Amino acid sequence: MIKVVLIGTGNIARYFFDSLDDKDQINVIQVLGRNESALEYFKTAISITTDFSNIEPADVYILAIKDDAIATVAQTLAIQNGLLVHTSGSVAMDVLPKTIRRGVLYPLQTFSKTPPHYSENIPFCIEAEENNDLDLLEKLALSLTSTVYKISSHQRLHLHLAAVFANNFTNHMYHLAYKICEENAIPFATMEYLIKETSHKIATSKPFDVQTGPAKRGDTAIIEKHLELLSHAKSKEIYALLSQSIQDTYGDEL
Amino acid sequence: MIKVVLIGTGNIARYFFDSLDDKDQINVIQVLGRNESALEYFKTAISITTDFSNIEPADVYILAIKDDAIATVAQTLAIQNGLLVHTSGSVAMDVLPKTIRRGVLYPLQTFSKTPPHYSENIPFCIEAEENNDLDLLEKLALSLTSTVYKISSHQRLHLHLAAVFANNFTNHMYHLAYKICEENAIPFATMEYLIKETSHKIATSKPFDVQTGPAKRGDTAIIEKHLELLSHAKSKEIYALLSQSIQDTYGDEL
Repeated sequence: MIKVVLIGTGNIARYFFDSLDDKDQINVIQVLGRNESALEYFKTAISITTDFSNIEPADVYILAIKDDAIATVAQTLAIQNGLLVHTSGSVAMDVLPKTIRRGVLYPLQTFSKTPPHYSENIPFCIEAEENNDLDLLEKLALSLTSTVYKISSHQRLHLHLAAVFANNFTNHMYHLAYKICEENAIPFATMEYLIKETSHKIATSKPFDVQTGPAKRGDTAIIEKHLELLSHAKSKEIYALLSQSIQDTYGDEL
Repeated sequence: MIKVVLIGTGNIARYFFDSLDDKDQINVIQVLGRNESALEYFKTAISITTDFSNIEPADVYILAIKDDAIATVAQTLAIQNGLLVHTSGSVAMDVLPKTIRRGVLYPLQTFSKTPPHYSENIPFCIEAEENNDLDLLEKLALSLTSTVYKISSHQRLHLHLAAVFANNFTNHMYHLAYKICEENAIPFATMEYLIKETSHKIATSKPFDVQTGPAKRGDTAIIEKHLELLSHAKSKEIYALLSQSIQDTYGDEL
C-alpha cells in the first residue's frame, strides 16, 4: 500500500485524487490546500486541511500546484520521511529541498479548464534521485497508466518545449484554418478527416517522411496565390515563415 | 449505371480506379494516359489508351492530372456529351472548356507517395454549373464516401488554403517537435497521446476554446526559457511568431 498526501486543489490535484481513488495499492490519506472552498471537492479523503504544518506521514507527497509556487511551498512542508514530487513539465527536480527525498511525476496531458480525461493512456514521466524512489514512482504511475518514461529534468524541459509545438501550436493551426473556413462559409467539419489522418500517421511514420503540400512540392504559384488570399497580416506572416521552414527542411530534395 | 472515363495515371487516378472498381452503379470503361507503362496499372479496364482522340462516350470524364496541366489537356479532349470534372483543390471549375458540361469532384485527402487510404470517410467537394450535373456528381461521390459537400470554386480555393494550415503546417509542427525529441534522446512516442487528444478535440470543440500552453496563459517566463532552449534560428522564429499570434488571438482575455 502506498500512502499518498496531495498538496493542491486545482485540476491536476483533482485528476490525481479521482484517478487514485479506486486503486487497491494506493491510499490518498490527506489533501492540503490554502483555499477552503476548493478543498470541499476532496472531502471524501480521510483528512483535508488548510494547515500545512499538519501534514501527515506518507510514502509520497504529490505537489500539484502552479509552477511558480512549487519551490516556495515545498520549503514550508514539514516532511520527515517520504518522497516529495512535483507534477510540472517545466520545473527542474532540484527546486525541491535537497534535505528530503525528491522526484517528479509528470502526466503529459493538457489540463485545461475542461475536466481532464481519465484515460489509462496518458504518458507519465518520472524522475528521482534514488533508484528505490524511481521504483516507487513507477509503481504509483503504473496504477494510473500503461505508459511510463524515465526522463531527466533536462529532457523534461525539452519534452515540454516539443509539446508546445506538437500540441499548442498545432491547435493554433486548427484555429487559423477554422477562421478561414468561417470567413468563407465552409463547414469546419470538412477538415476533420484530414486532421485525424495527419495526426494518426505519426504512430507509424516520421513526420519528415509524410509531409505534403505546396511548400513541400516547391509549388511557388500556389504559395503566392495563398498569400494573396490571406487577409490577416499575422496569418500571411505565419504562412510565409512555415512555408519557408518546410522548404528549408527539404531544401536538398527540391 | 454511370459510365466513367478516367484521364490520368497518377495516385489520384489510381484511387478513383480502385475505389470505383467494385461499385455496382459505376463502370469505368476507359483510362487515358500519355505514359504507356503507367497505364499498365489500369489494364483490367475495358480500354486503356495513349491516344486522346480515341476517347469513348461516357457520362462522366474524370480528369485526374496535375493542376497546371488541367486547362491544356481539357482543351484536347473530344467530348461531345458527358460531364468533364477535374479533381483539384486549387483550380477553378471555369478553366475547363465552357463549350461542354463541366464540374469538380475533389476528394479532400492528401495523396502522397504512399498509397492513399481507401476510406469511406474521405470528404468529397463537388461543384457543377447545372443542378442535374450536381446530382450526377453527388451520386458518383456517394458511391465512394458518406460525406459530400457542395462547394463553389471560390470556397474550394479557401478550403485548400485552410487545409494547408490544418494539415501541412500541423505536420511540420510534428516534425519540429520530433527534432527536439531526437536531439534530447526523448522517444517521440511521448508525444503521441497529446497529438491524438488535440486532433480529436476538434470534433466536439472549436479550436479557439481548447487552446492551452504558455502563450495562451501569457506565461512570458516559460516563453523566454523556451526561446533560449531552441538552437535553430528558424524554430526560434516560428516559436516567437506563433506565440505572438496566440497572444493576439486571446489579447483581450489576458
